[in-house]
Formats: sequence, C-alpha cells, structure tokens
Amino acid sequence: MAQKIGFIGLGNLGAPIALNLLEAGHELYVYNRTISKTKPLAEKGAKVCKTVGELAEISNIIFTVVSDDAVLKSLCNSEDGLLKKMPEHGLHISLSTILPKTAAELENLHQQNGQRYLASPVFGRPEAVTAKKLNYVISGNVEARSLAIPLLKDSGGINVWDFGETVTAANTVKLCGNFLIAGALEAIGESVLLATNSGIDPNTMWNMFSQTLFSSPIYANYSNIILQRKFEPAAFTAKLGLKDINLVLEQAHDSHSKMPLAQFIQKRLDSLIKIGHENIDWSAVALVASETSTI
Amino acid sequence: MAQKIGFIGLGNLGAPIALNLLEAGHELYVYNRTISKTKPLAEKGAKVCKTVGELAEISNIIFTVVSDDAVLKSLCNSEDGLLKKMPEHGLHISLSTILPKTAAELENLHQQNGQRYLASPVFGRPEAVTAKKLNYVISGNVEARSLAIPLLKDSGGINVWDFGETVTAANTVKLCGNFLIAGALEAIGESVLLATNSGIDPNTMWNMFSQTLFSSPIYANYSNIILQRKFEPAAFTAKLGLKDINLVLEQAHDSHSKMPLAQFIQKRLDSLIKIGHENIDWSAVALVASETSTI
Repeated sequence: MAQKIGFIGLGNLGAPIALNLLEAGHELYVYNRTISKTKPLAEKGAKVCKTVGELAEISNIIFTVVSDDAVLKSLCNSEDGLLKKMPEHGLHISLSTILPKTAAELENLHQQNGQRYLASPVFGRPEAVTAKKLNYVISGNVEARSLAIPLLKDSGGINVWDFGETVTAANTVKLCGNFLIAGALEAIGESVLLATNSGIDPNTMWNMFSQTLFSSPIYANYSNIILQRKFEPAAFTAKLGLKDINLVLEQAHDSHSKMPLAQFIQKRLDSLIKIGHENIDWSAVALVASETSTI
Repeated sequence: MAQKIGFIGLGNLGAPIALNLLEAGHELYVYNRTISKTKPLAEKGAKVCKTVGELAEISNIIFTVVSDDAVLKSLCNSEDGLLKKMPEHGLHISLSTILPKTAAELENLHQQNGQRYLASPVFGRPEAVTAKKLNYVISGNVEARSLAIPLLKDSGGINVWDFGETVTAANTVKLCGNFLIAGALEAIGESVLLATNSGIDPNTMWNMFSQTLFSSPIYANYSNIILQRKFEPAAFTAKLGLKDINLVLEQAHDSHSKMPLAQFIQKRLDSLIKIGHENIDWSAVALVASETSTI
C-alpha cells in the first residue's frame, strides 16, 4: 500500500525530523496543537490536518514526538485519538522519551485494535537532525521494525539500533542514555568551575579532554556549550531534563535498582528550576546552580 | 651533559614507564622502597641504587611516581633526599597526582637549590603505558618543559600537553580529569544496573553507547571492565581513587569551588572501602557499593 505518513508533534526535535521526511519525498500529513508550527512544513508541501483523528484516518504510518507519557497516552486514548482512528495494520512509530511500561501498555492497546506500535526513541539535539546524525533505538514487533528502519533513516537517522522484540527495551536504553548525559553535564560543569577558580583556562583543558579521554560527541558538544555558556535558547530545557530524570528514577524504583547518582542529579536540576531557570538548557545544571543555590 | 636518568617509584604505573625509558636506550638508575621491584629492570640493564641519595647524586634528570603528596615531600625534604643530593641544574620530573600547591612548594624549594621541578602528571592505566598511549600534562619552567618533552615521549607518551609556565596548572588538570573519570564510573555502573534489572542486555546497550554518544577511551575501557566485573587485580584501587577525590575536594575548598558531585563520589568510594573493598578497582564503585551498602 502507498505510504501516507502522519506526523504529530512539531517541537524543537519533531519539526526538523518531519522536514527530513518531507525532503526525502514522502507524502506527509502533519498535526500540531499550536497550528502555527505547521506553517513552515505546509509551505514545503506537507498537508496540515486540523485534528488528530483526521490525521490518523488518512495515514497508515504515524510518527509521534511529544513531551511526556500523559500527552502520548491522551493522543492514543482520546475519542478522536490514534487507537480509534488509525486503520487496521497501521503503524505508530513513537519517538518520545517515555517510561518502558507506557510503551508496553500502548503496544498492547494498539495490538487489540489490529494496529502496531514501535518504540523508537531518539538521541540527538536539533542540530543533529539537520546534520542527519540521529541515533534511533528501536524495539517491538519484527515487521514493524523492518517497515520503520528505512523511514527512520530518511528522517535523519545515521544509525538505527535494534534492541529486539520486547517493546520496553528501547525506552530503557533511552533513559539510561539521558541519565548518562545528565551525569556528564554535572561533571563537566564542576570541572570548569574548578579549573577556572584554580587559575587555568578551562578552554585549554577541555581542548585536551575532547581530543583524548573524553573524545566523544556528548563531551565535545556539551563542554563547548558549557564553556561558552550558550544556555539560551535552550535545545533541551532543564524542565525536560528533570522530567527525564524523574522517569529514570521511576524506572529505577520499578526495577529495584539503586541509583543514588540519579537522585543527586534530580536534586540539582530541581534546584536549577526552583531558582527560575526551567527554560534554559539543562547543561547549565552545575554552573548556574552553583552560582545561585545552596544545594 | 650526558643524561643519566633516575627513576623513583616502580609501582603499577612507574615500572612499565621506567621500562619504556630503558628500552628507548637511556642510561637508567632506579630506586624503590621495596627493592624486589627493581629486579625486572635490573635484568634489562638498569642500575639499582640502594638509597634515594645515591640515585640523586648520580642522576641529572629524576622521574618520581609515588602514591601521595606526603611521600613525595619526604623524598624531596629528607636528609638523604632530592633537594640535598640532586646536582645543581638537575631536573625533577614529577609524575604523581598531587595537589597543585604541593607542586608550587616543591618547585620553589628546588629553585632555591638551583634545581628545576616540572609538574608532569599522567593519564593512562598500566596497559596504556605498554601501548605507549599515555597522555602527559605538563607545566613549569620553559627550559624544563623543553628538556622533558622528548623523554616523556620515550617513556610512553602519545601526547604531551603543555599547560604553560605556572607549575600548578598541570596538577589541576589532572585532578579535573580524575574527577571526571570517577563521575563516569558511577554513571556507567548505575546504567548497567538499571538496564540489567529492566531485563535488557547491558552489553548490547554499551556496544551502542561506546560507538555513539560515549565513543571515548574512558567509556569504552571502563564499560568493558564494569560489564565483565574485572575488578581484580586492580589497575587503580578504590583506595587510590578516594585519595584523588580527597585531593579534588581539597583543591575545591582552597579555590572556593562548589563541587557537590565530587562530594557525592567521595561518599560512594568511602562506602566501597568501608565494606572492605579498598583494593579492588575503583570502577567497582556503583555496582559493588550498591549491592552491599545502604549509601
């Protein structure tokens, strides 16, 4: 059957991913709660849907990129939602960072309706979408994975990492990844403080670390952001960071895993937000929190 | 003048560094408190000195690799020590991880005796010495730096990073680096726990992270050690790790830097040691501490 692709959620990450799909030649239907965000895509040929239901009825593959578990569940479960309106055999490719158990629940509900659900969270900031350097991690039904992989590559994926049949796996990996990043952010920030206050140039130091011990994308990109204090506009806000660390801790609780570092990072992000910085980049966690907070 | 090189401290790191110098063709004089450790080097042509003073009188360049600030100070200040026995213009290349202020103090004392002191701490575990992939960070007198760089390369350095004239700089960078590594160890360990307890294979997950977000030597090597639980024999013990984090916190205190993550890591390493694991590798911090401690 001809692929008509629906895309819901045109935020910082969703919008450029949708654009990549459009530019790869796919027939694209878009929906966003704030309709003005559909305009740049409409100008390039995307068809704008006024409701989720309208999009769901017309698309046989639907991408969703939304901010949290509750929004995604509501997209699926509402009267005008995906479960009721998607065609049989339709595929829901879910890119959001959510709890593994939410993925299991939604897979189950889609299956009951003869539809398919794929967990496909994504690593990459907005600039990585444009550079087509996203890393997708996927898990779920084998046919869903086969169908999705070429589309995920078209959408900006440099790699699609397959974590197998159990749908919860990919979201667990995504939570581990965001936790690791948050830990690195705090550590980078404190190292910059110590170097600066000890009288050495933190740029020279990080020039070395970025080429040696910590020669990885996360450390190279984020040390640059932290050293230049480019915390606004945020590519990923402290508020979203805290939301993800809260998911990490919920998964830690559910799986009986001790994660004291995750608890520590939760406190730090929380203190950054409490002093009014919920909308700056989460990489500000050590520098800005240390300047203004007692935690 | 002909270079007669002295080498003091033949531990896990010192012994293979000394061997590299010997194999590069240098005339090498060695001293170690436990004399049996000099034997493998003596068999390859190193001359064994029975006292620090004997070594200091005969060598115009002396490397030291010792476990802490107190041992290094004692090596310099004792009746039979480097300050009294080294020749004028002699160069002390100090590889140990110590406080920046100790480096400043020793540089000053050597200068008073017409000798030179170079701060040259080193990043790399024993296997990196053999592979000649050490990263040295150096700071101090410009002539001392020029003289030392080719020797540091002969000793196994793939890179020598020059942090300029102020002798304290290199030790500050080293403390920042070890702090960053310790933070990464805790994060890797907790991610392995969360993945495992959530029913996914942490090896598959780290195979991805090591090729993508965290494709750096520190994460690649240590995730491997943590996944395989190769904590014994230790290349770098929990006890030495705690010693270094204590130095980080002393430097943080002296420089008025807030480092709550360093304080957290201190508690974790301390709890690992309190349950009897001071001699296992410091990379065990999250896994082993979480299994047996309530902190």
